[in-house]
Amino acid sequence: MERDIIGRIRFGGGVKLSFLDEFEWIKRLTKDKQSIAVQQACGVQTGIGDDAAVAYMSSGHQLVMTCDTMTEEIHFKSITMRDKDIGYKAMAAAVSDIAAMGAMPRYALVSISFPRHADPLRIEAIYEGLYECANRWSVMIVGGDTTSSVNGMTISVTVIGEVQAGKALLRSAAKHGDIVFVTGELGCSAAGLDFLLRQELPSGQWGHSGKPEIERLIQAHGRPDPQIEAGLLLQSSGVCHALNDVSDGLASEAWEIAEASGVGIDLIEDRIPIAEELMAYAQEVEKDPLDFILYGGEDYQLIGTMQAEHAVDMQMKFRAAGLQLYIIGYVNMESVGVRLVQSSGYVVPIEKKGYNHF
Amino acid sequence: MERDIIGRIRFGGGVKLSFLDEFEWIKRLTKDKQSIAVQQACGVQTGIGDDAAVAYMSSGHQLVMTCDTMTEEIHFKSITMRDKDIGYKAMAAAVSDIAAMGAMPRYALVSISFPRHADPLRIEAIYEGLYECANRWSVMIVGGDTTSSVNGMTISVTVIGEVQAGKALLRSAAKHGDIVFVTGELGCSAAGLDFLLRQELPSGQWGHSGKPEIERLIQAHGRPDPQIEAGLLLQSSGVCHALNDVSDGLASEAWEIAEASGVGIDLIEDRIPIAEELMAYAQEVEKDPLDFILYGGEDYQLIGTMQAEHAVDMQMKFRAAGLQLYIIGYVNMESVGVRLVQSSGYVVPIEKKGYNHF
Repeated sequence: MERDIIGRIRFGGGVKLSFLDEFEWIKRLTKDKQSIAVQQACGVQTGIGDDAAVAYMSSGHQLVMTCDTMTEEIHFKSITMRDKDIGYKAMAAAVSDIAAMGAMPRYALVSISFPRHADPLRIEAIYEGLYECANRWSVMIVGGDTTSSVNGMTISVTVIGEVQAGKALLRSAAKHGDIVFVTGELGCSAAGLDFLLRQELPSGQWGHSGKPEIERLIQAHGRPDPQIEAGLLLQSSGVCHALNDVSDGLASEAWEIAEASGVGIDLIEDRIPIAEELMAYAQEVEKDPLDFILYGGEDYQLIGTMQAEHAVDMQMKFRAAGLQLYIIGYVNMESVGVRLVQSSGYVVPIEKKGYNHF
Repeated sequence: MERDIIGRIRFGGGVKLSFLDEFEWIKRLTKDKQSIAVQQACGVQTGIGDDAAVAYMSSGHQLVMTCDTMTEEIHFKSITMRDKDIGYKAMAAAVSDIAAMGAMPRYALVSISFPRHADPLRIEAIYEGLYECANRWSVMIVGGDTTSSVNGMTISVTVIGEVQAGKALLRSAAKHGDIVFVTGELGCSAAGLDFLLRQELPSGQWGHSGKPEIERLIQAHGRPDPQIEAGLLLQSSGVCHALNDVSDGLASEAWEIAEASGVGIDLIEDRIPIAEELMAYAQEVEKDPLDFILYGGEDYQLIGTMQAEHAVDMQMKFRAAGLQLYIIGYVNMESVGVRLVQSSGYVVPIEKKGYNHF
């Protein structure tokens, strides 16, 4: 809320922030980023500036709510993420959770804590990134809180969306006979991070490879695209069962579906798509690209299951919508867990481990 | 979300947290705090455990959304707040923003970041406090995120409520001829904080006065009561215009209404209620109790304006409901701002300043 931004900055703020008049500060962060007309068209009656925001929801719909937090040195460092990307990705990660329910994101609240000595331009860049992502998906930022912290930055984004009542896609809905799909290539974000960390640059400097394929990996890490259209298409189809977003790597997400649904999942190695740039990078650093895919995180593609007989039809619908759908495995009832059907024909268990932050 | 709690704790967590199995940890924090039956009765279809929560809203209602963040050493220290109180107050502050719109709080999402070396029992106590407050007002905690931080604790609570469409009470709605009211005594929280800070106890120790009147001040600081019933009564009456919660002191909140509504507000010194325990404490520390009231914060009473002719009737309704309503001033059109009509008869401007955190 505006009140909070004023109050907390004004009194919690130190030298660097105090030169900014409180209203000037709010204006810089939020003004003109989403016009009143756009906000109204998107259902906002009262946005930033009162104790709470007031907004409309579509009738016959349920609320879908999530929040996602990123902390400095844990989820990002200045050598792995540019400030604008930090904002973009914080919003994208929360929006992705809404996509993973087959729902439509509508409103967001943003809470940022940062040290008193922080450079206001950094905060402005983060807000620019937040709005860039929000605007791309017509998510209205209706409130938030900006506070000082003793050390380090924390960004927490809550996104509120809606889904037709009873139609949310839960991770517990996988059924025997389903196929397992993903909506895009995985592992690129983790490879981009791997590249940036290997540069060992001083804090604040930014790694450039000069190679377009590496830049695409870095882009995947800093600017992931939440798969909202794919989620909505899957939800409206009526044939999708379980759905999850890949925030912690394919292994971890497949395990979550398997455990929540009480089923087994077999992933077929040869069917898992591998981006060319990931393949090239993995060769360069002498790693198995599958490691990035299974145990890397933050790609924010969707993984789910659907009735096998509808899979090809759905793939065509995805193609027609300019989206991708890869069938990478199937659900079995043998036991609860995840296995990999290797190219050699061997079937090996996949460990239930996920993304390891710094 | 459960996934996040697992993922982040498991991989971001250090020695102290790692002894806890991931599921055990989630269970400790959230299990049995709000039963499935209670959640369902309160509109939750899918709570903690999927990418996002799914819940119902009342038809014909608008969403009301807010978020409030507290950071360690800025909004609380171990000598000013017990862990359970930190959780209670974090929830109360966000719920109070919903009350200040005349709305009903329904769902909450909690984001906590804490250092890897944090004592898990501290986090559990904070969660207990969060649930204690949430349960008291039937707010369902449907999600959140638990992450590590490099230093210090940050708690961000988002609350989602609802209000009959078009009926939210905005701070911009004060009108000429309105009276100004508050729903309870102010300044006690700031006095309680003042007492605790004066003890100069080592970190982790807790001040006890042995005097019940001081304990009431400490209670006001650690366990504020959001005024939901009062807000709903004001909203349903149809005669209340502007409404705000007193989080930053009476002066700051009155200024917010005055500026948002483009009016002047005169507060009458003799009509501002002063709690006996505040009066006694102020005498003891040789301070003016009005300083705590005007410039202290975090009482979470409501301040608002309503049509003068309905004020007495509303006071009787409040009394019948076991609530308080003090008429402390009036709206004028002379200029935008806030003045104090002193006991002496002098009218002096009130500074537009608010609560000063440590």
